[in-house]
Amino acid sequence: MFADRYDVAIIGTGPAGVSAAITAKVRNKSVLLLGSADISDKVAKAHSIQNYPGLPDIPGAELAKKLREHLDQMGIEITDRKVAMIYAMGDFYSLQIDQDFVEAKSVILAIGVSFGKPLPGEDENLGRGVSYCATCDGTLYRGKEAVIVGYAPKEEADARFLSELADKVTYIPVYKKDEMPAEGTELFPGIGNIEVMLAKPEGIVRRDGRMVLTTDQGEVVSDGIFLLRESVSPGKLVPGLELDGNHVKVDRKMASNLPGLFAAGDITGTPYQYIKAAGEGNVAALSAVSYIDSQN
Amino acid sequence: MFADRYDVAIIGTGPAGVSAAITAKVRNKSVLLLGSADISDKVAKAHSIQNYPGLPDIPGAELAKKLREHLDQMGIEITDRKVAMIYAMGDFYSLQIDQDFVEAKSVILAIGVSFGKPLPGEDENLGRGVSYCATCDGTLYRGKEAVIVGYAPKEEADARFLSELADKVTYIPVYKKDEMPAEGTELFPGIGNIEVMLAKPEGIVRRDGRMVLTTDQGEVVSDGIFLLRESVSPGKLVPGLELDGNHVKVDRKMASNLPGLFAAGDITGTPYQYIKAAGEGNVAALSAVSYIDSQN
Repeated sequence: MFADRYDVAIIGTGPAGVSAAITAKVRNKSVLLLGSADISDKVAKAHSIQNYPGLPDIPGAELAKKLREHLDQMGIEITDRKVAMIYAMGDFYSLQIDQDFVEAKSVILAIGVSFGKPLPGEDENLGRGVSYCATCDGTLYRGKEAVIVGYAPKEEADARFLSELADKVTYIPVYKKDEMPAEGTELFPGIGNIEVMLAKPEGIVRRDGRMVLTTDQGEVVSDGIFLLRESVSPGKLVPGLELDGNHVKVDRKMASNLPGLFAAGDITGTPYQYIKAAGEGNVAALSAVSYIDSQN
Repeated sequence: MFADRYDVAIIGTGPAGVSAAITAKVRNKSVLLLGSADISDKVAKAHSIQNYPGLPDIPGAELAKKLREHLDQMGIEITDRKVAMIYAMGDFYSLQIDQDFVEAKSVILAIGVSFGKPLPGEDENLGRGVSYCATCDGTLYRGKEAVIVGYAPKEEADARFLSELADKVTYIPVYKKDEMPAEGTELFPGIGNIEVMLAKPEGIVRRDGRMVLTTDQGEVVSDGIFLLRESVSPGKLVPGLELDGNHVKVDRKMASNLPGLFAAGDITGTPYQYIKAAGEGNVAALSAVSYIDSQN
């Protein structure tokens, strides 16, 4: 399903990612646009946007629709898959998308800032019992016990997948209030080895070779903990990427410290504004085009 | 016609200026928006714009109309006057608009990059026989001789005005090709003391207390030379403003070296793109809002 090597891989389908994709396409580059097919959840849920020039007082859902139509009109597809890791390989980047590895000459990060603070113990145990990707690491848990902390209802699919491999899966939904399952709802009908637990995760420790998730409802002991969030902090997604607090450090050309890797939108810092994000996506795309052309 | 002191004065009505005005207004600041009532000439004349996200394949004239409608819907007026100089006064700015002086707590420069290179001798004689503003300095030429180099047909109005004061006005139209008067057209019917000269200005020198404009058609000697361009280079418009080549030097918050003065759009550097300009206008406005609030 993937091409051999894309000119530009763009991660994120908010205004920054969409803008970057449009401009890269105008400049005749091959584009892999990864993100939600429904455009940004944040945009779609915005009540009304006053200050996107040219589209006065537009409901978020309407702006999301217009962005989607703009992509459609230019023949740009959205690949609705999650990127687990991005590796700088010298003159190209390798993106891990579930079990696939995809190559791109340049990358534009437009992933927003929806990731939260890490849990205590999370960073230290990442790759050593803590994982962000059930599809990537699930096979390590064949015949074992795993915990999934799901930050959105769509992560339930990964619990079903993991239950086919692991002996036992404990699923902890930590959704937004209005997304939490109603009391009495059976989340995984017909699947005997998933236990749903309502709890607030508080930290992660390793004890006697096993992983312990501490919660406000007590400890859960297992062989591995999956933290499935909408997006991963950029420093974890791209090893070696220089940050400025929670944000990717960029210059006025939207260039990061890694040659060929650019960022745009909320991930580059405040103000968190749609039109600012769209403008930065444009600049990032043109910088990526210059970078690619200079490499040839 | 002007308020005592505006929160934000915005110079320029392209996408950067319009975006800044909209966001400043959303944030309840009083806005003076100065520029062409027809929005940017550059936008209006663009054939088709592919990459303004949400408005696919939009003719420039249509985008200009939508920007204008957005301003109208928010009750933001355009003041179609030209700013001659902007002075940093400490905790406010003073804008010279013809003979008026207007005050603003903060300024956003969004004047684009349509100004050309200065003529040889222009910079050295500015304020000493060379002027950019006939309305400001016209009275100095009562009973004298003046030359006007007009870079657009609308400058003919200033020639008419100056002819009421000066003994003699030489008017040199250096318009775009399609704007040049057809052969045999009388530009100033009924006005005896304006002489129209078709020539290409090449330089300015001072000789025996008079000003000499050298052209490809020979010298024109007078008491003063008016160079009437669409916009003046930002370094001349704002004394003390730090430039980077032709552009205003700004940081990621669109702040210049002068506290309270911000810039957005083409004037801050490449890429010269509409959506980049709109994004920067938004950031500049929010930075101006922060600056104003921090001063109170």
